Amino acid sequence: MGVSVDLNADLGEGFGRWSLGDDDALLAVVTSANVACGFHAGDPTIMRRVCERAVANGVAIGAQVGYPDLAGFGRRFIDIDADELADAVLYQIGALHAFARAAGGEVSYVKPHGALYNTIVHHEVQAQAVVDGVARFAQRMPVLALPTSAFLRLARASGLRPFPEAFADRAYRADGSLVPRSEAGAVIHDPAAVVARAVEMAVTGRVTADDGTVVDVSPVSICVHGDTPGAVELATQVRRALTAAGATVAAFTR
Amino acid sequence: MGVSVDLNADLGEGFGRWSLGDDDALLAVVTSANVACGFHAGDPTIMRRVCERAVANGVAIGAQVGYPDLAGFGRRFIDIDADELADAVLYQIGALHAFARAAGGEVSYVKPHGALYNTIVHHEVQAQAVVDGVARFAQRMPVLALPTSAFLRLARASGLRPFPEAFADRAYRADGSLVPRSEAGAVIHDPAAVVARAVEMAVTGRVTADDGTVVDVSPVSICVHGDTPGAVELATQVRRALTAAGATVAAFTR
Amino acid sequence: MGVSVDLNADLGEGFGRWSLGDDDALLAVVTSANVACGFHAGDPTIMRRVCERAVANGVAIGAQVGYPDLAGFGRRFIDIDADELADAVLYQIGALHAFARAAGGEVSYVKPHGALYNTIVHHEVQAQAVVDGVARFAQRMPVLALPTSAFLRLARASGLRPFPEAFADRAYRADGSLVPRSEAGAVIHDPAAVVARAVEMAVTGRVTADDGTVVDVSPVSICVHGDTPGAVELATQVRRALTAAGATVAAFTR
Amino acid sequence: MGVSVDLNADLGEGFGRWSLGDDDALLAVVTSANVACGFHAGDPTIMRRVCERAVANGVAIGAQVGYPDLAGFGRRFIDIDADELADAVLYQIGALHAFARAAGGEVSYVKPHGALYNTIVHHEVQAQAVVDGVARFAQRMPVLALPTSAFLRLARASGLRPFPEAFADRAYRADGSLVPRSEAGAVIHDPAAVVARAVEMAVTGRVTADDGTVVDVSPVSICVHGDTPGAVELATQVRRALTAAGATVAAFTR
Repeated sequence: MGVSVDLNADLGEGFGRWSLGDDDALLAVVTSANVACGFHAGDPTIMRRVCERAVANGVAIGAQVGYPDLAGFGRRFIDIDADELADAVLYQIGALHAFARAAGGEVSYVKPHGALYNTIVHHEVQAQAVVDGVARFAQRMPVLALPTSAFLRLARASGLRPFPEAFADRAYRADGSLVPRSEAGAVIHDPAAVVARAVEMAVTGRVTADDGTVVDVSPVSICVHGDTPGAVELATQVRRALTAAGATVAAFTR
Repeated sequence: MGVSVDLNADLGEGFGRWSLGDDDALLAVVTSANVACGFHAGDPTIMRRVCERAVANGVAIGAQVGYPDLAGFGRRFIDIDADELADAVLYQIGALHAFARAAGGEVSYVKPHGALYNTIVHHEVQAQAVVDGVARFAQRMPVLALPTSAFLRLARASGLRPFPEAFADRAYRADGSLVPRSEAGAVIHDPAAVVARAVEMAVTGRVTADDGTVVDVSPVSICVHGDTPGAVELATQVRRALTAAGATVAAFTR
Repeated sequence: MGVSVDLNADLGEGFGRWSLGDDDALLAVVTSANVACGFHAGDPTIMRRVCERAVANGVAIGAQVGYPDLAGFGRRFIDIDADELADAVLYQIGALHAFARAAGGEVSYVKPHGALYNTIVHHEVQAQAVVDGVARFAQRMPVLALPTSAFLRLARASGLRPFPEAFADRAYRADGSLVPRSEAGAVIHDPAAVVARAVEMAVTGRVTADDGTVVDVSPVSICVHGDTPGAVELATQVRRALTAAGATVAAFTR
Repeated sequence: MGVSVDLNADLGEGFGRWSLGDDDALLAVVTSANVACGFHAGDPTIMRRVCERAVANGVAIGAQVGYPDLAGFGRRFIDIDADELADAVLYQIGALHAFARAAGGEVSYVKPHGALYNTIVHHEVQAQAVVDGVARFAQRMPVLALPTSAFLRLARASGLRPFPEAFADRAYRADGSLVPRSEAGAVIHDPAAVVARAVEMAVTGRVTADDGTVVDVSPVSICVHGDTPGAVELATQVRRALTAAGATVAAFTR
């Protein structure tokens, strides 16, 4: 019997007149959609459309919560108070859930975005604040993040359901953390290598780190991108290769 | 057996560092709180606090939905597309509902704010858009507005539950519409007169218009204000006078 | 001796992570850049880059002022008070001027954007408010708009320097106004026809209206677009055709 | 001959419907107004009014530049890129300058606000970015900040004119830095003590630190506050006491 793996991607990251990535094409490839909720990207109309299309395609809807920073696309660390961060998280989930429900679906998981995602790998106070915001929405809500993050650890301790993801196009350290983007070799650009790593991660649960060590990352989901040229094509290849390797590609929240 | 009437007021209309009105004092007086949802006023932390306090005080929580216009406090007409308006309404209700639910309550009605409130008295397209946004959240949601408004008429036709409100401090025309604020005498400043009109409206369902005609407004709720000096004191007097006149002051959604 | 005509286009209309159109390519074609100032589009970094590139290319910098409405891209009418509109206009010009000056240039004209542009064709109060805002920056500032607009008329009366522009890809009425976009035939899609109209407008000052009448529009500038596929190529063709017809293509503020 | 000292305060820190502090009262007391520029507080209409009133009262206008964060009132550190910060600073100064000039004045100095003010005490990259943004507006612009800050040091090195300020209501360390607000005793609440410290700072240039050491802070300006109850009265007392002690109270940029 084969393994099952999820493919997740960031979606609905336009704003008003501005679009980003090809949401419709990506929704035909992924099994989980991290939908921006209006704080760092996304607006009500975009959220409605992505939710409708996701439900039509059988794609799970996740709340891609971020810092309140449209100008910075949520990519700048903000030293926000824990209470305000928890409230911002709850607000975003609630707003998205209204669209998910109107489309016949629901918010079935939460995945933090950008600088918030990176911050709560190590920032205990903000990590706990995100946990608190999510838990106020639903005490057993699944959350998706790096396996080595403080966030996943605190999520588990608070009763949320933590799920680890992996990046097929990022280099790893021997301790399971990502090589920072500021370092050479942090991002893997060769499509064939990306596809091969996705299959390795999904089938074996392991990935080869930058020092040659084999690390166990056991992802339930692999993150693919949609906002660069060729990204949708690459995601499509990843999906095909996973299927060819005997893996079932399905939402991790099923 | 006496009549029952609701007192509603706008609450949570601060933003970040800025506050407006005395939310806590007003929550001890009113029975329904129109809570701003972050588009024209309000922010996640303010929304949480008002919801928690409202639930503690047994005050019903309503979504005070507005145009996306913090700089204008939702007081400027915006010629927004119907789809975008409906989506903006649904977004705001969803966000507030998350806080209401986390506090142990729920969004039990919707009341449009400011320029949106005034526009949908007559603007059929925007009125229907608000109806559509509300109905996508809950098909039988109560909505509170002027009895003469296109909005209440369309709400009824769409299956929402329309409830008329009245203003004790505003002059009325013989047709039941409000005298525009731009005209002299539009706002009644004498506290004793405001209190007397509130009782008249609640007990008889009628109010004397500016031409002496007696108009039937049959309000289920009377709107009081909290953002001017003496406003909370006046609201308190209105509540006392209603009780003294034999009226039960209770949320209209009960 | 040949005529001289300006080519203007909207530029710098991205925001943060989002871009719109190919600013660099367009800056190699046009002679006047209408630079968004951060209220409906544009941000400080985009403004700096466009100003630097415009100065390097000898392109005149104009302030593309709009309603405060990022979510609506300035395309929704807002019923803003005259004072607030004048202040919003002055704010935007001042901000852009700082970047223009730092780049070695200056704001040499003002062109309203989107719904504001359309509104002040007929809305006298808002038209005068824009005039007032511009005049507080510089009493003799050139402004670019439709020849039939209340704005240009009031600008002239207030001492500003009014300049009429024309649209090579829009159908005209016999009275010199544009056929509204909501009507069939409002936009001319055939590139050859657009190029021919641009030459006709520039060389003769006239254009054939939708009823066959020949209308005098006498533009000092022709507006081209950059935010649709093929737009830069079309603008390039327009410029070549104008030059081939003997026209000098140069900034109207020279 | 007596010393001369400036009194500066934050002004124009409302936004739209929301006001903060009593700008008019404070403008009758201070000699330099740090005017918010719309990024963390302030809007075009508020900026115009404060500039008009400041010029009428002979109060110098300074640009109170902040992080782009209305929701956080500029009080949250944002890890913004140096280029974007420099551009944000230039944008804000340019916008304010348009209002100052229209009122018959000018932006005569720059004082960073809130979290930005605190960050550039030690954050060299952001400090240099603010310096760069200011210098692009005017190479010899005066800047007002803490004497121990990296910002003032880098400002001097870049050709700006650095001016040190002091806080009469804050406790100092022996090294001239402020006791952090998180520590007990950081803020001095006794009005008589605040007045006495202001006089000591102005007349002797020194202040007694929390360990009893006497520190030289040599302020050209003393910062007073206007957004708390009694603040304007306290500022008035400080001014009277300075005058009574023989100090001339005048803008430091004179």
